[in-house]
Amino acid sequence: MAHIDLGVDETQFPGINGPMRFRPETAKPLNELAEILLRGPHSLTAGERELIAAYVSGLNECTFCTSSHAAFAAAQLDEGMSLVDQVRANLDSAPVSDKLRGLLRIAGAVQDTGRKVTPTLVEAARAAGATDLEIHDTVLIAAAFCMYNRYVDGLGTFAPEGTERYELAAQRIIQFGYGAS
Amino acid sequence: MAHIDLGVDETQFPGINGPMRFRPETAKPLNELAEILLRGPHSLTAGERELIAAYVSGLNECTFCTSSHAAFAAAQLDEGMSLVDQVRANLDSAPVSDKLRGLLRIAGAVQDTGRKVTPTLVEAARAAGATDLEIHDTVLIAAAFCMYNRYVDGLGTFAPEGTERYELAAQRIIQFGYGAS
Repeated sequence: MAHIDLGVDETQFPGINGPMRFRPETAKPLNELAEILLRGPHSLTAGERELIAAYVSGLNECTFCTSSHAAFAAAQLDEGMSLVDQVRANLDSAPVSDKLRGLLRIAGAVQDTGRKVTPTLVEAARAAGATDLEIHDTVLIAAAFCMYNRYVDGLGTFAPEGTERYELAAQRIIQFGYGAS
Repeated sequence: MAHIDLGVDETQFPGINGPMRFRPETAKPLNELAEILLRGPHSLTAGERELIAAYVSGLNECTFCTSSHAAFAAAQLDEGMSLVDQVRANLDSAPVSDKLRGLLRIAGAVQDTGRKVTPTLVEAARAAGATDLEIHDTVLIAAAFCMYNRYVDGLGTFAPEGTERYELAAQRIIQFGYGAS
């Protein structure tokens, strides 16, 4: 049960879906931001960007967002959930490109505090091929999930167990995008 | 100097203004969210909501955002910067209503992690008169500033010293709102 009356059946509208129904005015820019960052035209694939979102959500220990974005990443990465699991278990040894590893390290720093993003971290990502736009969007994706995670958990929303609901949501996001629900 | 080339003179476009010029696509929902949360029609005054933003930004040690939203709060609160300083120095003894104190305590919990928002904190705010919408928006303001703060610091943006630039920005925000620059 959420901390406030969201006016919905939380088993039907779990996680962020309840607060977004409760406050459609703020849901609009929240969805628009996710759509641009995770699904807009980009040199990083949607799967790579969802992986950054899942990684940060995992560090924030937000069950609903981690399960959601891990499923969304897995559904859009050739390597599927195996790669998501490996990145979350050990970023240093996970089989990702040096560029993506560098970006994920920046995201991990942002999750703690923006002040942990050092010139060394940024230069390492850039030396591996990351562009300024990719570095910018990685910082903003990580920062945005520090918001979404706190929004979902700060209101005490319901997170379904298992993987089925999240896999269904992944198909919906891939087909219709954020904000269509 | 920011970590990436923002394409602007940072002394003219300090803090979040540089990244927002660099990436106008994401600036739009970021500004829209701030406008609704901090300046839209509400039972909390704009000054009270800016005070929540300043308090969270202070906990996140984000110089640019703290200086900005402290100035924006001070310009819209009868008690001015004195109240902002007292809240930031000692929330327990600051001369605010029990309702606002309860909401600020929720915001402080969110700043750490959403999972720190307990039913006890929520019930205390509610017992002091806070509505579900006020609790929702407090959680989202606090969560959103965990994003804005990380965005500003994660890109290593420039923060002017002193108070003059922030006081000028306050007048601009009060007159034109977020996103007008």
